[in-house]
Amino acid sequence: MADFTEHQLASESIFSGRLLDVRKDKVRLPDGREAAREYIVHPGAVMVLPLFDDGSILIERQYRYAMRRHFYELPAGKIEGGEDDLATAQRELLEETGYIAQSWRHLLTIHPCIAYSTERIELYLARELSFVGHTGEDGEFLETLQLPQTEAWEWLRNGKISDAKTIIALLWLKTAQ
Amino acid sequence: MADFTEHQLASESIFSGRLLDVRKDKVRLPDGREAAREYIVHPGAVMVLPLFDDGSILIERQYRYAMRRHFYELPAGKIEGGEDDLATAQRELLEETGYIAQSWRHLLTIHPCIAYSTERIELYLARELSFVGHTGEDGEFLETLQLPQTEAWEWLRNGKISDAKTIIALLWLKTAQ
Repeated sequence: MADFTEHQLASESIFSGRLLDVRKDKVRLPDGREAAREYIVHPGAVMVLPLFDDGSILIERQYRYAMRRHFYELPAGKIEGGEDDLATAQRELLEETGYIAQSWRHLLTIHPCIAYSTERIELYLARELSFVGHTGEDGEFLETLQLPQTEAWEWLRNGKISDAKTIIALLWLKTAQ
Repeated sequence: MADFTEHQLASESIFSGRLLDVRKDKVRLPDGREAAREYIVHPGAVMVLPLFDDGSILIERQYRYAMRRHFYELPAGKIEGGEDDLATAQRELLEETGYIAQSWRHLLTIHPCIAYSTERIELYLARELSFVGHTGEDGEFLETLQLPQTEAWEWLRNGKISDAKTIIALLWLKTAQ
């Protein structure tokens, strides 16, 4: 296998915001030339596939400003400084939906945007769900619904679900059956 | 269904680079408060799932600097100003792999990073493939390989394939069978 490694020559912070940490590096390409690489440094995230005993799933509907519309997506959130992946998944599920789960299983690590972000998403399957009350995270506006799998496949097919991480979790569930 | 729309109050260009166009907007939240939204404006992209008659797929291996390692991924690329989605898919397949396809079918529209990017990816299935010669795009370093589907599922399962868009295309193929 060929080695296409690009070696860092310089690195510059372009923007460090509330959410985005943008960097611009100068690199040495495999053929010796120089090039610029712009990318987002991301702390990583988790996603939870909450599966009820009857096979239905818990999904959220929220507004995504970048796209200027509402999306259906599974519970997810960023890993906070030093927090364990599984602890993040458990926290996000509770904060966003009011549910806890007795059974947790790590399914996949996903890289959503390898062209311009360091983000990884750890996908967990959560079962044996119980509703313990919805506190809600300050400043988060969302609603949850329990969706039969047949409807989820239909929403994938007709484009009503188009969020990549959610598509992966649902297709994983379909192929696991 | 609740309306969680966030209304733009102001919009500012933070960085406009070779690849990344970063914006920071001030918005009015559904509860009347104000918040900041940082995001990437992206022109959109295409991905191609090149499927051979024997069921194997054409996949690429290239270095992704943001993650500092090589990735296996399907042919993909950005839509250039005014270019048609299908024309982009045909161009990227030829430039990156040297293949053309007689049969093209649009499968899905995917949003890879709804939390902080406007990117959409149009996924095409390409069949009846013929190799017409690899010119290569200037400054693109990659190698291609023909992968049996059984091996592709194994690479999904063991994490050797972790690129989100590629996982979606492969799982789509698996569920379509």
